Amino acid sequence: MSNIPKIVILGAGYGGILTALRLQKELNYNEADVTLVNKHDYHYITTHLHMPAAGTDKAENARVSISKLIDEFKIDFVKSTVVQIRTQDKKVILEDGTLSYDYLVIGVGGEPETFGIPGMNEYAMNIRSINSVRLIREHIEYQFARYKREPHRTDYLTFVVGGAGFTGIEFVGELADRVPELCKQFDVDRQLVKIINVEAAPTALPGFDPELVEYAMQVLTKKGVTFRIGTAIKECTPDGVIVGDGEEIRSATVIWAAGVRGNRLVDEAGFETMRGRVKVDETLRAPGHDNIYVIGDNSLMFNPEGRPYPPTAQIAMQQGVTCAHNLVASIRNQPLRKFEFKNKGTVASLGKGEAIGLAFGKTYRGRTAAWLKKLIDLRYLFIIGGIPLVLRKGKFF
Amino acid sequence: MSNIPKIVILGAGYGGILTALRLQKELNYNEADVTLVNKHDYHYITTHLHMPAAGTDKAENARVSISKLIDEFKIDFVKSTVVQIRTQDKKVILEDGTLSYDYLVIGVGGEPETFGIPGMNEYAMNIRSINSVRLIREHIEYQFARYKREPHRTDYLTFVVGGAGFTGIEFVGELADRVPELCKQFDVDRQLVKIINVEAAPTALPGFDPELVEYAMQVLTKKGVTFRIGTAIKECTPDGVIVGDGEEIRSATVIWAAGVRGNRLVDEAGFETMRGRVKVDETLRAPGHDNIYVIGDNSLMFNPEGRPYPPTAQIAMQQGVTCAHNLVASIRNQPLRKFEFKNKGTVASLGKGEAIGLAFGKTYRGRTAAWLKKLIDLRYLFIIGGIPLVLRKGKFF
Repeated sequence: MSNIPKIVILGAGYGGILTALRLQKELNYNEADVTLVNKHDYHYITTHLHMPAAGTDKAENARVSISKLIDEFKIDFVKSTVVQIRTQDKKVILEDGTLSYDYLVIGVGGEPETFGIPGMNEYAMNIRSINSVRLIREHIEYQFARYKREPHRTDYLTFVVGGAGFTGIEFVGELADRVPELCKQFDVDRQLVKIINVEAAPTALPGFDPELVEYAMQVLTKKGVTFRIGTAIKECTPDGVIVGDGEEIRSATVIWAAGVRGNRLVDEAGFETMRGRVKVDETLRAPGHDNIYVIGDNSLMFNPEGRPYPPTAQIAMQQGVTCAHNLVASIRNQPLRKFEFKNKGTVASLGKGEAIGLAFGKTYRGRTAAWLKKLIDLRYLFIIGGIPLVLRKGKFF
Repeated sequence: MSNIPKIVILGAGYGGILTALRLQKELNYNEADVTLVNKHDYHYITTHLHMPAAGTDKAENARVSISKLIDEFKIDFVKSTVVQIRTQDKKVILEDGTLSYDYLVIGVGGEPETFGIPGMNEYAMNIRSINSVRLIREHIEYQFARYKREPHRTDYLTFVVGGAGFTGIEFVGELADRVPELCKQFDVDRQLVKIINVEAAPTALPGFDPELVEYAMQVLTKKGVTFRIGTAIKECTPDGVIVGDGEEIRSATVIWAAGVRGNRLVDEAGFETMRGRVKVDETLRAPGHDNIYVIGDNSLMFNPEGRPYPPTAQIAMQQGVTCAHNLVASIRNQPLRKFEFKNKGTVASLGKGEAIGLAFGKTYRGRTAAWLKKLIDLRYLFIIGGIPLVLRKGKFF
C-alpha cells in the first residue's frame, strides 16, 4: 500500500471541503489515500455566522457535520488540531498524533487581525467560528439580563462593532433586527440600546459602489445603527473602547470584525509569508514546495491589477476546485492548471429583507438583493451537500 | 370625594393580588378608593420561577400583566417602587411620588436571607423575580459558550445551588433536565457538567415525609445532581464556594436558594419585626395599627403548635382573601374575621414528570405528583385570571 500517494488536507473550511469533495469525485479507486484533518467534526458556513452571532438564526443552521459531506469510505477524517507543519519531514504534528503526507493542502483558515490595538485580543469577541458566535449571542443576551438587575449600567446595552467591512456590516444588520425582540423579551426600552459601528477607513464596505454604500448606511441607520466612519479604535478596555482623540465609548460588548490575517501555523512552518499568508504560485503551490498547496485565507494571490484578492469564501471555493484538479494531475503526471478567479458577484446582507449586491455586472439593493443573497447561500449548500443538505439546512427562508 | 376611604395595597405578589381581586369583587361602587402599587407592571408566579431560571420554560409564562388581572375602572394601579412607609403621616413614599392612605396593606414580599455568609450578596444569584431568573438563565447559557472558548475552565460547567429546600430542589430538578439539551446545543460532554446541591441542614426538604425525601434524592441523583447534605457554605467567592472545613468548590455559578427573610421596608417603618417580618394579630393587622394589614412574606404568624408558618404562596393567598374581607368589614363597621390557615397540601417538582407531594392527607410521588403540581398551577391561574388566563399561560403541559 505504501506506493499509493498520501494526500493530507488541513482544514475543512470552504477551501478544504471543496478540495476533499472534488478529490472524492475525481480520484479513482486506490489512486491516493486522502485524509481530511479538522479541529471540529463539522464544517461551518462562515458567511452565515453573523446570524447566529446576533441570535437571528440557530448556530445549528450554520454548520454541517463532516460525515454528512464526505464519503468516509473514500476519505479518512481525523478530528484534531494542527500543532505544527514540518515540511522537511513531510509530517504534520497534531495535538494527539502525527500524519505523514506526500501531498499537503493547507487550508486552516485565518485568524483575527487586531493590528496591535491594545486590549483587542483580551476584551473583544470575534465572528470566527461556531463557538465564537455562540459566545457572542449568549454574551449579548446576558447583557440584557444583567442590565435589568443594574439599571444604571447602560454600558450593558451599548454594543460596539469594530469594522464596517463585510462582516461588521452584516452583523450590525442582524443585531439591529434582533434588538427589538430582546427589548421585548427583557422589558428594555429600545431607546437605551446603542449599536455603534466604528470604522477607521474613510468609508464603509470598501469595494462597493458608493451609491450602494450610501443605501446600506441609510437602511442600517434607520434600523438604529450609529456609524462612526473614519474613526479609529485606539484601545479596547474592560470598560469599552477608546476612539479617535481619546473619547471613551463605554460598552460591555465589543465585537472586532475589522480584519483577518493568515495563520501563525504557516508563519512557523518556514514559508515566506505576509501576515500569515503564503504568496502561492499560479498553480496554488507554495514556492519551493511542489507538493504543498495553500488555499483560502492562508494563501495570498494578486489580481491582474496587482492588488491582493480579499480572503473570501468565493475565492477559497474556487481554489479548492483548482487544488483538487492539480493534485489529481500531479498524481497522473498531467500538466497543472493555473488558477483564475471568476468573480460571481458579491452580496452583503443588511438584515431581514435588505441587502446590497454586485453581480452579473449589475447592482442590486433591497428585497431583490436579499433574495440573491439567499440564492447564493442555497447554491453553496447544494454544491457541498446536494438537495438533502439544502432541505435540511436551507431553512433560513 | 375625600370622605371615601383610601386603601393602598403595596405589592402585587400572591397576597397583594388576591387582596386586590377580592376588594374589586366585594366593594360597592364608591365605597373605597383602592390603589395597587407594584414595582413592575406584572405579577409573577413565584412558584413557577425555577423553570425559566433553568431555561425549561419561558419567563413569559411565569408572569401576567397586572392590567389583565385587575379592573382599572375599579382599582388604580401605580407602577413604582416603595421607598418608605410613614405610618404616623399615613403616607407611602414612592420612588417618584407619594400616596396617602386610610388603610394600608403591606405585601412587598421578602428578600433573600444570606445569614451573613461572606460574599453571598455579591457573587450569588437568587431565584426571586422575573429579572433575576432571566439573569440566571442567561448566565448559565453563557457559561456553556464560555467553556467552549476556554476548555480548561471546567468551573464554568459546575453549578452550585445553595439550599435543598423547596426552591433549591425544584431548581436542580429543572436544571438537570436542561443540561442534556445545553450539552447538545454547545457540544459539551455531559460528564463534565456538575450540579451540586449544598444544604447545611441534616436533610433535604425539611417538613416532608423522610420516605418522600429519600425518593426525591434518588430521582435527582439519577438525573445527575450531587447532594452535599449537612454541609454548610462558609463563603461565596468570585471563584466558587468554600464549604465545611474549608474545601473549595470551584464554580462560576452559585445560586442561593436557602433562605427568605422579610423586608427592610417593614423594619424601617418602625414595626416590631423578626427578620423583616411583622408579627401580626389574628386579623392580620400590625400590632398598634388598626388600619395596617401585613400579609405574605412580610407577616409572621404561628401555627397552633407555636411554630411560625413558612413563607409560602398558599398562605399569602389565603391571607389576601382574609385581608380583603377585613378591609371591607372595617369600612362597613362589621366585625373582623380571624385568619385560619387551611393546608391544601404541598407538591415539590423534581423536573419533568417527577414530583413528590403531600395532599388530602396522602403522599404522592412520580407522575401522579407531577400532575398534581400542574393542577395546582392551573388552579392558581384560574383563581387570578379565570379561563382566559389558563388558556394563555397554562401552556406548561
